[in-house]
Amino acid sequence: MSMALQTKQTLFDIDQSHKKTCNPFSVPKRLLLGPGPSNSHPDVLKALSLPPVGHLDPFYIELMAEVQELLRYAWQTNNRLTLPMSGTGSAAMEATIANSVEPNEIVLVAKKGYFGSRLEDMAGRYGANVKTIEKPWGHAFALDEIQAALEMYKPSIFAIVHAETSTGVCQPMDGIGDLCRKFDSLLLVDTVTSLGGVPLFIDKWKIDLAYSCSQKGLSCPPGLGPFTMGPRAEEKLALRKGQVPNWYLDVSLLNKYWGSDRVYHHTAPVNMNFGIREALRLLANEGLEQAWTRHKINAQRLWNGLESLGLELHVSEDLRLPTLTTIRIPADVDGKAFSLHLLNEHGIELGGGLGDLSGKVWRLGLMGYNSTLDNVNLILNLFETELPRFKNNSVAAS
Amino acid sequence: MSMALQTKQTLFDIDQSHKKTCNPFSVPKRLLLGPGPSNSHPDVLKALSLPPVGHLDPFYIELMAEVQELLRYAWQTNNRLTLPMSGTGSAAMEATIANSVEPNEIVLVAKKGYFGSRLEDMAGRYGANVKTIEKPWGHAFALDEIQAALEMYKPSIFAIVHAETSTGVCQPMDGIGDLCRKFDSLLLVDTVTSLGGVPLFIDKWKIDLAYSCSQKGLSCPPGLGPFTMGPRAEEKLALRKGQVPNWYLDVSLLNKYWGSDRVYHHTAPVNMNFGIREALRLLANEGLEQAWTRHKINAQRLWNGLESLGLELHVSEDLRLPTLTTIRIPADVDGKAFSLHLLNEHGIELGGGLGDLSGKVWRLGLMGYNSTLDNVNLILNLFETELPRFKNNSVAAS
Repeated sequence: MSMALQTKQTLFDIDQSHKKTCNPFSVPKRLLLGPGPSNSHPDVLKALSLPPVGHLDPFYIELMAEVQELLRYAWQTNNRLTLPMSGTGSAAMEATIANSVEPNEIVLVAKKGYFGSRLEDMAGRYGANVKTIEKPWGHAFALDEIQAALEMYKPSIFAIVHAETSTGVCQPMDGIGDLCRKFDSLLLVDTVTSLGGVPLFIDKWKIDLAYSCSQKGLSCPPGLGPFTMGPRAEEKLALRKGQVPNWYLDVSLLNKYWGSDRVYHHTAPVNMNFGIREALRLLANEGLEQAWTRHKINAQRLWNGLESLGLELHVSEDLRLPTLTTIRIPADVDGKAFSLHLLNEHGIELGGGLGDLSGKVWRLGLMGYNSTLDNVNLILNLFETELPRFKNNSVAAS
Repeated sequence: MSMALQTKQTLFDIDQSHKKTCNPFSVPKRLLLGPGPSNSHPDVLKALSLPPVGHLDPFYIELMAEVQELLRYAWQTNNRLTLPMSGTGSAAMEATIANSVEPNEIVLVAKKGYFGSRLEDMAGRYGANVKTIEKPWGHAFALDEIQAALEMYKPSIFAIVHAETSTGVCQPMDGIGDLCRKFDSLLLVDTVTSLGGVPLFIDKWKIDLAYSCSQKGLSCPPGLGPFTMGPRAEEKLALRKGQVPNWYLDVSLLNKYWGSDRVYHHTAPVNMNFGIREALRLLANEGLEQAWTRHKINAQRLWNGLESLGLELHVSEDLRLPTLTTIRIPADVDGKAFSLHLLNEHGIELGGGLGDLSGKVWRLGLMGYNSTLDNVNLILNLFETELPRFKNNSVAAS
């Protein structure tokens, strides 16, 4: 038999042209102080590398329940439908849209940065009649502006970004939930850059749909998208006329796997779930109060330090996100060259601006595992000692 | 400042009810001989646990190119658009549908198991006029049956499963690509349980769209969905009237990130890509000929051994998948009890039947890292020595 197979083997006519020869690799040491991913906690990386088990294994089923429960704590919600989508934060974002939007419904999107625009794009793809209100990048919406728009458009869904990763703005949420109930709109909120790092209360704020990511406040690598859906959104899903036009993200199917039935939907990314379970455990061990306070204290230190170096922060202090700070690139500085220098010489990643802020700001994240006094001191020291070399006249002189 | 924050901290009114106390965990030792996930190669798990880098880091950009090139080799294709989707195999499956189906087009699905039905479901969600041809679970389609259906329905897309994970059938592919070109249909193929383990030639077989997974023949944990799209499908995408109705899986957007522009789309699951890069490297090191031959030899040993124990295999030998074997549960055996016994007493996962084969077969996978002589001997030994205890009369007697 073995002989016969050996003969057959020569019949395989394999094209070797893409057979690239590679060696095992090591990764360069990076301190990720951009808009995300942030560095992962070492215990999370250890959990990630445990041998996989089956997605219907009793051990895994128990772990799923732990992930859900710990996620409810992190998000401060009792929502039954709280689970990590098997994709990145963008998949969870699309899940909130795909499961709630029905064709021709009015969806009102409050745009004050890049991720508001993405919500607009996605809602359009699901057939919504999308209306928008806009603010300049770096500002937040006032409650009366939101009220006026809800009155005008009477949307089925109102979508807004809590922590706008492109601008560093934290949208004040007080009163928005009540307004949405008054106008019979579902409240859909992006919490990508707030979960785990910034005060966030899904139930208290009357949020009906929210999504986040694994790689920022949770100190886990990217690859899972926490998702939560409250009773009002669940009811809308149950009453919808057609199927959810997205199979992978269809919560009515996913619920049969994550709920008590454990009906196979797709093969879960088990190792990523090992990772997020550990990340959520570490967050619960620290406690939300402590984690939020730590982020706030370190951000405040960073802001004070940057301002004392004469740098300008793009967002007014009352609206600043503790997890992500936008720093205006001084007019005489080559911002990109400085970022490249930090990456190449110090292994530190700093983010650039997106969209309206492209070329105008650096984005500096202090998220999860990376929100430490040491990191604040390190980056402030580099801004103090090395930024001057990137002023235009200095570059020209060197 | 620190005092002020401390005071503020007491203002957080945190609900502690979901603050589950958990310990760090270890996983039970499992030999995964079901339909997948299969065990991962230890080097892949090591790669998975490396610290993440940014998704636009020059190091990561280079790694992406390696993943793409190695995937082209594994799939035997020159397709430019060859990349892992940031979700599981089901996400990649949906990506082939979402990017190719336009509303009201005829999509013909050849159904001979569970995954054909899923293709039918997905195509319907994207507005296709879905037609189907069917064979009993455990059979394959003959070329003339496919020809007759193509003639009758003249579909825009013909979808078929190469390696049907629910039945253990390997669909002969000779001539299907030529027929699809003759009838101007795109050929969309499920290669979830064939990639890396079974002869598979995307270009030679004239396949226009294919998808797979990371957790079977590639010996990587689940979480990425290899995807490839040939020039004919790319042209259809370029000419489509509306936007792709799925943002996360929109290849026209993804191509700007994976192509030369590197425009941010979503934050890539960098650690999963570390893992698949290592998995694909190990496959290239072994060589496709050797990997395919190894799977075939070990499967043949398993089949011979099972038959010599008097067990019946569900699929005729000429159509059997080397990666996944369906074994008929003898009439006098409690199949579920035997699977549970293997899991609980020996840490071995065996799959049950799905759909039409529910309760009728076990599904036994020998995939990637798990396709070894030792595993064959181990499982044959357990079938020989322990299965007799699960015959109804024995159970009753004990």
